[in-house]
Amino acid sequence: MRIARIAHPGGEDFCLMGVDGYRLIENPFRTGVPDLRRLSGPVVSAADARLLAPVQPRTVVGMAHNTGPADRALAPEAFLKPARSVVGPSGAIELPAGIGQVDAEAELAAVIAADGSVFGWTLANDVTARDLQATDARWARAKGYPTFTPVGPWIETSLDPETVELELVLDGQPLGSATNARLARSVGEVLGYLSTFLPLGAQDLVLVGAPGPYGPLAAGGTASVRSPQLGTLTNPVRSSGLVAADHPRTVQGALG
Amino acid sequence: MRIARIAHPGGEDFCLMGVDGYRLIENPFRTGVPDLRRLSGPVVSAADARLLAPVQPRTVVGMAHNTGPADRALAPEAFLKPARSVVGPSGAIELPAGIGQVDAEAELAAVIAADGSVFGWTLANDVTARDLQATDARWARAKGYPTFTPVGPWIETSLDPETVELELVLDGQPLGSATNARLARSVGEVLGYLSTFLPLGAQDLVLVGAPGPYGPLAAGGTASVRSPQLGTLTNPVRSSGLVAADHPRTVQGALG
Repeated sequence: MRIARIAHPGGEDFCLMGVDGYRLIENPFRTGVPDLRRLSGPVVSAADARLLAPVQPRTVVGMAHNTGPADRALAPEAFLKPARSVVGPSGAIELPAGIGQVDAEAELAAVIAADGSVFGWTLANDVTARDLQATDARWARAKGYPTFTPVGPWIETSLDPETVELELVLDGQPLGSATNARLARSVGEVLGYLSTFLPLGAQDLVLVGAPGPYGPLAAGGTASVRSPQLGTLTNPVRSSGLVAADHPRTVQGALG
Repeated sequence: MRIARIAHPGGEDFCLMGVDGYRLIENPFRTGVPDLRRLSGPVVSAADARLLAPVQPRTVVGMAHNTGPADRALAPEAFLKPARSVVGPSGAIELPAGIGQVDAEAELAAVIAADGSVFGWTLANDVTARDLQATDARWARAKGYPTFTPVGPWIETSLDPETVELELVLDGQPLGSATNARLARSVGEVLGYLSTFLPLGAQDLVLVGAPGPYGPLAAGGTASVRSPQLGTLTNPVRSSGLVAADHPRTVQGALG
């Protein structure tokens, strides 16, 4: 089942995606996945709808160094992204001037239910200011600018997270595809690790890691995360009009 | 003006704190600070009310190494805490078995308005699993367990954040007090730094740093952050009944 969130002339709503358009539903994170046999809500045509980020999370968490088999030697480790850095399909990724290299990372995201279990799956682009990571040990800034977490286009409630194909396409050029079978730690291991400490709830997102290639964004271009099972998440890239402030080199591991 | 959030027989609401009790108000993050001359809502007596965390944030951010003048040599750097780690006054801080030393840190928290400006101020305890920091470079786990961010007891809308006194009291023993004048970076500098990248909005929290002593928590004890201007935030400390999973040593600064 495909669940999306749309802006339409009547407001913003969750919906089921069907061949006839978008059938509006109650918030499924409160009601549970709807019973298809009982649905009778209004249908919005695709022409009248704009896809939004499929969730409004409170927590967005990713896995550090979970990009390939070699990372298996490192202990699992998580990082947090600001909830308000999330943008939906077609939302622009905005780059401040002077920020250095900013990479797109194509990832599968687990969408979390109210009870902490997996509600479904969507695509995510874990946008990362690569040069800033060297002087930002906690990555709050390097991964935390507004628009640095595109997600969507919809939630698929039934999916094998280990075999789903993920492809990164920058400015129309495919960089290559991969499955999560290549990750140092499987999706199950990631969710298991996080469950040992992290409070998660309705609409939260777990970015499980980037199994394939990543690549730099350029203003004026586009970034797409593509999957036969999950659709295509495409975002234009543009200059934010702001200048990234310069901060001197810092030290790793200090208390605080 | 003191604004709190309470649970009462009629539900959960924001309120103004007065000598006669808690006067219920609309969500002030939507309506703005209420006009005292026009208030006519119901008043809940203190006996019928339980203070909740005064906000339900989407983003909780703290400052790394902003604990004293020596940290001035380091560049400013932020970390994120999970929004769902927030608990209110009287909520228990829960310690998993085997987690090692867990410290209380007494801090001032800026409460953010819908437009990103400062709405007011409250107290926070930035609970930190000290031993875990050595193997958790991003601190998502070391600072991210459920209940690791007590905040409250209320929001003060008018306060000088540099001169407010903050005192940490563990198990009834005062560890000493300090003002933010001792921080490596002032509250204004902290907010200025974060404004260069971090998207913040209604009910978000900025923990500005711990200017005074910190100290270890013990199950069965209590932790209080005390201020003449902001009240006292007291939380009991207890065992969570869970065991902290063991994860081997990791490496700082890896990509991901």
